Amino acid sequence: METLSRERAHGGEQVVCRHRSESTGTEMVFSVFVPPHAPGARLPVVWFLSGLSCTHANVTEKGEYRRVCAELGLVFVAPDTSPRGEGVPDDPDGAYDFGLGAGFYLDAVRAPFVEHYRMRRYVLDELPALIAAEFPVDLSRQGITGHSMGGHGALTLGLSNPNRFRAVSAFAPIVAPSQVPWGQKAFAGYLGSDRALWRRHDAVALIEDGARVPALLVDQGDADPFLTEQLRPELLREACAQAGIALTLRLQPGYTHSYYFVSSFMDDHLRWHAQRLG
Amino acid sequence: METLSRERAHGGEQVVCRHRSESTGTEMVFSVFVPPHAPGARLPVVWFLSGLSCTHANVTEKGEYRRVCAELGLVFVAPDTSPRGEGVPDDPDGAYDFGLGAGFYLDAVRAPFVEHYRMRRYVLDELPALIAAEFPVDLSRQGITGHSMGGHGALTLGLSNPNRFRAVSAFAPIVAPSQVPWGQKAFAGYLGSDRALWRRHDAVALIEDGARVPALLVDQGDADPFLTEQLRPELLREACAQAGIALTLRLQPGYTHSYYFVSSFMDDHLRWHAQRLG
Repeated sequence: METLSRERAHGGEQVVCRHRSESTGTEMVFSVFVPPHAPGARLPVVWFLSGLSCTHANVTEKGEYRRVCAELGLVFVAPDTSPRGEGVPDDPDGAYDFGLGAGFYLDAVRAPFVEHYRMRRYVLDELPALIAAEFPVDLSRQGITGHSMGGHGALTLGLSNPNRFRAVSAFAPIVAPSQVPWGQKAFAGYLGSDRALWRRHDAVALIEDGARVPALLVDQGDADPFLTEQLRPELLREACAQAGIALTLRLQPGYTHSYYFVSSFMDDHLRWHAQRLG
Repeated sequence: METLSRERAHGGEQVVCRHRSESTGTEMVFSVFVPPHAPGARLPVVWFLSGLSCTHANVTEKGEYRRVCAELGLVFVAPDTSPRGEGVPDDPDGAYDFGLGAGFYLDAVRAPFVEHYRMRRYVLDELPALIAAEFPVDLSRQGITGHSMGGHGALTLGLSNPNRFRAVSAFAPIVAPSQVPWGQKAFAGYLGSDRALWRRHDAVALIEDGARVPALLVDQGDADPFLTEQLRPELLREACAQAGIALTLRLQPGYTHSYYFVSSFMDDHLRWHAQRLG
């Protein structure tokens, strides 16, 4: 693991690292904020999964999470959104919503994507082991959140691993990728036509199929241009109501899909996670 | 004035605008954050002057000022750091420390810079009038701050206009440009060899020559790579001690010159301004 930068911030350290990933077969870059802490302490960790076209850098620069992570004693990790580099296949037209920057937090089964697009394994297994080896985290206290495609990732990984993630939230998530254009394109490309497989990577379908967490916090801007076609939070509301999941879904008036939206509600999400991570 | 973007953030609005400037003879871009406020209210305003190579965008994206401006009811304005565009002369070698992105908040007197490099007039006269006409600000309550070259700008404009700026602070400022390479290059290029003229744009010289403000807040990272050659806060400490100016100079351990440093102490500066702006 190579440290690309290490900066003092809000009393802690904002670190950016690169490492060779066995999951993706590529080099991967991630960022970690470590708040001020007592020597020897092991801290709860919140994973932030980013959206289409992003890298670790977007939330690291614009997410405004460090002050409250320092206050609450949370480690904050931001992975990349896909494998990258020579030999990694991309969308044939170079579109932003598939391929590079658009890994959808699943393990592809279709050629040519199966070789490198293994973001689920990377985020669930490889990166936590690396983080635990290199940083003062307590893996018994993990929360997960994310934005847009990363909100999809947070919800699906959280619902699939309720014993691991004690807190799950999302900002403007794609709640039902099987039912919307972004998700249908990605799932067809990475997973093929097997709709049963799609359901294992779709938050609403997972809930319909029995996945449960105690509670979810979701913020969504009502001026988000992707609200009605791609995000459709009402589908999550219906699924949670049916399933008895305590969903707090807040429609935030006037907010769009940008990091101005994410950063405005970052404090609330991190406090929500900290309450549940003890 | 053209609105380039308008985004809901922290309950207020982050706006980016472009306008034709009479001062610089170019189009200029700036950002304004307007916090939530009662209809008809006129709010205190804090000017943030950015450093070498920056535009309005650096602090707008990385400054982490919106949450506390919303809490305190402060308007926050971030101008560009120089004129830009076709016909605007740059450093002959394209260096980052002169010309484009390096206006030093003064009005040039030397050709070919005299025609467009009029950032002092722009920041002191033209932009406040425009802001007051278009946004709900109270120009009787202005504070000024900035980073690096922009810290130099905040100190010199603040010291030169103590009746206008009721609060003056700076992050890692160039306190004595006449005595350091960045400032000597810029002043020679924009102002020529008249050292008496240089002193009117040098915070330490201004204080030596009688300029006074009641108090200054300055933060400086002790791991800043420019600390000993370009920034030299001890010169400001000595000048303030001689002059009886209540300088709060905080050397922040481990911090560098980046926006990780600026954002870490933004809250403190804005609270300090709000106290003085009523």
